[in-house]
Amino acid sequence: MKISIEEIAKIIQAQIVGDASICISGVNSIEEATSLDITFAIDNRFLKQIETSCAGAIIIPDSMELNKAIETQSVFLKTRDPKRSFFDLVSLFHPLLKPATGIHPGAVLGHDVIVGKDIVIEAGVTIGNGVCIGDMVHIMPNVFVGSETKIGSHTTIKPNVTIMERTRIGSDVLIHSGSVIGSDGFGFTQSSGMHEKIIHTGFVQIGDHVEIGACNTIDRGTLGKTHIGNGVKTDNLVHIAHNVKVGDNTLIVAQVGIAGSAQLGSNVIVAGKAGISGHIKIGDNAIIGPYAGVHSNVEQGKIVSGIPQMPHGRWRKVVSIISRLPEMRKKLFSIEKRLKELENKKE
Amino acid sequence: MKISIEEIAKIIQAQIVGDASICISGVNSIEEATSLDITFAIDNRFLKQIETSCAGAIIIPDSMELNKAIETQSVFLKTRDPKRSFFDLVSLFHPLLKPATGIHPGAVLGHDVIVGKDIVIEAGVTIGNGVCIGDMVHIMPNVFVGSETKIGSHTTIKPNVTIMERTRIGSDVLIHSGSVIGSDGFGFTQSSGMHEKIIHTGFVQIGDHVEIGACNTIDRGTLGKTHIGNGVKTDNLVHIAHNVKVGDNTLIVAQVGIAGSAQLGSNVIVAGKAGISGHIKIGDNAIIGPYAGVHSNVEQGKIVSGIPQMPHGRWRKVVSIISRLPEMRKKLFSIEKRLKELENKKE
Amino acid sequence: MKISIEEIAKIIQAQIVGDASICISGVNSIEEATSLDITFAIDNRFLKQIETSCAGAIIIPDSMELNKAIETQSVFLKTRDPKRSFFDLVSLFHPLLKPATGIHPGAVLGHDVIVGKDIVIEAGVTIGNGVCIGDMVHIMPNVFVGSETKIGSHTTIKPNVTIMERTRIGSDVLIHSGSVIGSDGFGFTQSSGMHEKIIHTGFVQIGDHVEIGACNTIDRGTLGKTHIGNGVKTDNLVHIAHNVKVGDNTLIVAQVGIAGSAQLGSNVIVAGKAGISGHIKIGDNAIIGPYAGVHSNVEQGKIVSGIPQMPHGRWRKVVSIISRLPEMRKKLFSIEKRLKELENKKE
Repeated sequence: MKISIEEIAKIIQAQIVGDASICISGVNSIEEATSLDITFAIDNRFLKQIETSCAGAIIIPDSMELNKAIETQSVFLKTRDPKRSFFDLVSLFHPLLKPATGIHPGAVLGHDVIVGKDIVIEAGVTIGNGVCIGDMVHIMPNVFVGSETKIGSHTTIKPNVTIMERTRIGSDVLIHSGSVIGSDGFGFTQSSGMHEKIIHTGFVQIGDHVEIGACNTIDRGTLGKTHIGNGVKTDNLVHIAHNVKVGDNTLIVAQVGIAGSAQLGSNVIVAGKAGISGHIKIGDNAIIGPYAGVHSNVEQGKIVSGIPQMPHGRWRKVVSIISRLPEMRKKLFSIEKRLKELENKKE
Repeated sequence: MKISIEEIAKIIQAQIVGDASICISGVNSIEEATSLDITFAIDNRFLKQIETSCAGAIIIPDSMELNKAIETQSVFLKTRDPKRSFFDLVSLFHPLLKPATGIHPGAVLGHDVIVGKDIVIEAGVTIGNGVCIGDMVHIMPNVFVGSETKIGSHTTIKPNVTIMERTRIGSDVLIHSGSVIGSDGFGFTQSSGMHEKIIHTGFVQIGDHVEIGACNTIDRGTLGKTHIGNGVKTDNLVHIAHNVKVGDNTLIVAQVGIAGSAQLGSNVIVAGKAGISGHIKIGDNAIIGPYAGVHSNVEQGKIVSGIPQMPHGRWRKVVSIISRLPEMRKKLFSIEKRLKELENKKE
Repeated sequence: MKISIEEIAKIIQAQIVGDASICISGVNSIEEATSLDITFAIDNRFLKQIETSCAGAIIIPDSMELNKAIETQSVFLKTRDPKRSFFDLVSLFHPLLKPATGIHPGAVLGHDVIVGKDIVIEAGVTIGNGVCIGDMVHIMPNVFVGSETKIGSHTTIKPNVTIMERTRIGSDVLIHSGSVIGSDGFGFTQSSGMHEKIIHTGFVQIGDHVEIGACNTIDRGTLGKTHIGNGVKTDNLVHIAHNVKVGDNTLIVAQVGIAGSAQLGSNVIVAGKAGISGHIKIGDNAIIGPYAGVHSNVEQGKIVSGIPQMPHGRWRKVVSIISRLPEMRKKLFSIEKRLKELENKKE
């Protein structure tokens, strides 16, 4: 596949600086691109990389000014959002391969399973009774789908995912491999010194346009639901406990843990390895820093970090002091000594 | 399914306050319960929620006093342990569905496999040679059971679990999806600058009444066993390394990591995301706080928190000071200045 | 299997202290060994355990001096590297069971799959189109191998592993159960308040002699590759994001998270639960302490710890001060009071 810069400029609505007739046959990062590749630069921080890049063409922002020397090195395409424009081209050069539709004979379906049109169910899949699967759904090998689960249209479940009974999954959802949706929460009652299991009768509900990373664990509600809102994206190895609510378009980075019944608002960002205690509320648009230990409510729009969490600005100050604690302690002892001397003279 | 309050009171041995003739058709949380649901309140902290709940009936503790206004709103059932009583009713309203017994033709069994009575082995299961499976065991789809493994009676293995060879699992055990039992430990010897693999000839032994969460990794012993005692419960994404011993009825919350050869006593609680170093001992009834980094032995009954761990009370003080370090540092500098002034006057 | 000490001494090139004629039938740890077992002691720290051990024979270092009383208790074998010698014997007593070669009829292979000689592909395995599998490869039950993946010779993939399309795996690699190789990275663009998915066209490349622990997640490159060098070993539940580079022979302990485009050198050690931010560089032979939060480059050979990372020696001092912060604060206030008194007297 070869496309001229002229054609590309039409597709991404770009203004061309340089030779419109040259052809491009691939997409690549600014470091690895060859003269046959197109790449992109988000802003002026990439100027140095632009200078040394071998890319045949580079998408840059409308506002970027280039000196003449650089301009002759490559062809430039100016757009409003170069990252966006670039990934539109990525989709063009790497169209998604559509597998053949149908149900593999090695898949096992329960009774009363309803499937939409143009679905793909691959080998080793087991689907329980009363499951309802929308149009264009793709279930990859060795996935388990428990009984009475609903899966919306255009959803893809990657290999080796486990979806326990009565889960409700929206449309345009993508669940990566190894994830477990609808496992029992960690809930017990005490009975003569033993921990006795509580039956978890709730379920997990996942909205539309959600992406769940690899090896996530999302527990069902003890009663009622664990709810993942529309547009939520989770990274890998994320733990979401029973009855947690995650608002729309919230981002949860890798290895985050969210304890039971916590409520996250919309457009929240939870950075990697953070932990959120049970039953607390995180307001809309809040940002939780990496490793943060969040033990109390966070108001909307606030940025917090640290263990336990504090305003992010304060945490940055605290952190810079922590590494200087040995000097601080030394100064404290020296001051005490000087004070003593002064007190002694006084007498 | 509809049951009258009168019948329910008999089942959970409750004293009725209100109309014993009304009927209930479900169980729910205090917030989501409708007039057809029964719910529960543990103690007086729930009084406000009782006032606003729409529940048809509420189980409360014997000792709870209600004012007349609240009493007319709902029917109340007084018991010694409302949570326990409630979850007994949950089991009644949501009886466990028993799948049809037998071995699915899509399962693959090795030679010399011994199976007890009334077992269920579902599609996609592979069972190695010489495996011994007790009565009423349920092995769900796509589970792998390595050779010479023993599984006690009434144990359930959820879909996509991996159990490597020679694992010994007790009775009434529940292992959630994605977990890996008996993987090799992280052990190598140095050989001319390379890390050379040590053969792990040990195994994992899991006691009775154990529940293992989703996506746990429990490594086999390098030599000898990794031992999970009776009644132990682990949450999701827990890592237990080679040759670790976990005492009876210990609770391990999500994303905890326990390094090689560590020994945990009985009735220990390890809170979420804590890490325990290799070869150390945690005494019976100890509690490890969230995120704690435990690098040395913890005596029985002690509560520790922090990185590295310290007595929990001290950690609470430390934590409150950490966020005030900027003020402390400022004060230190101001004191130094004032001291200097004093010293100068002195001269 | 029974072997005399004399024969063992020949195999591991050891010098015998004691009766060369006695026979050994197993290998075990120093605590659990019986009179029929051989065990080992690395150095003088094990002297006490040697005294109380019931082992029939103990491998010790050439340089270890024993008193006469201990010498009569057991037979000793002196070698240069007792751990190494011992695990050579472990391999002898526990030879790896070779499964029957061939492709199980329950495995599903795409078109244009090339397989080497003496391979084992077990039940429930799905292999995509154009996959190339080297000699002696062993793929265990319920593994998924995506299309156009290459797997080098002598590599073993344990049950329930997921390998997404276009992954390149070297020779003598071992991947433990539950791991996911080649999942999409966590990358989105903003589009009218929504997070829009970036198509990940890169891949994962794994070198030779690599061991990947259980339930790891290694994301494919957004563009280009995520690269795991030769001889790298990862423990369980490790997260490696898109476009990360890990140098040869680097060790990554359990529950570590490495963010996108980070570069680790060769022979690096990353201790348990550490987190490494995106786009930073860790030099060769560096050591990252447990729980460390590494937010900036680490030079080669440096040892760092803490959140955020600092030189390990400083972190040890800081940590010892942190637990004494309450006393430090108290002293600060007492000094302030004394200073005030002095100032008042002055006036």
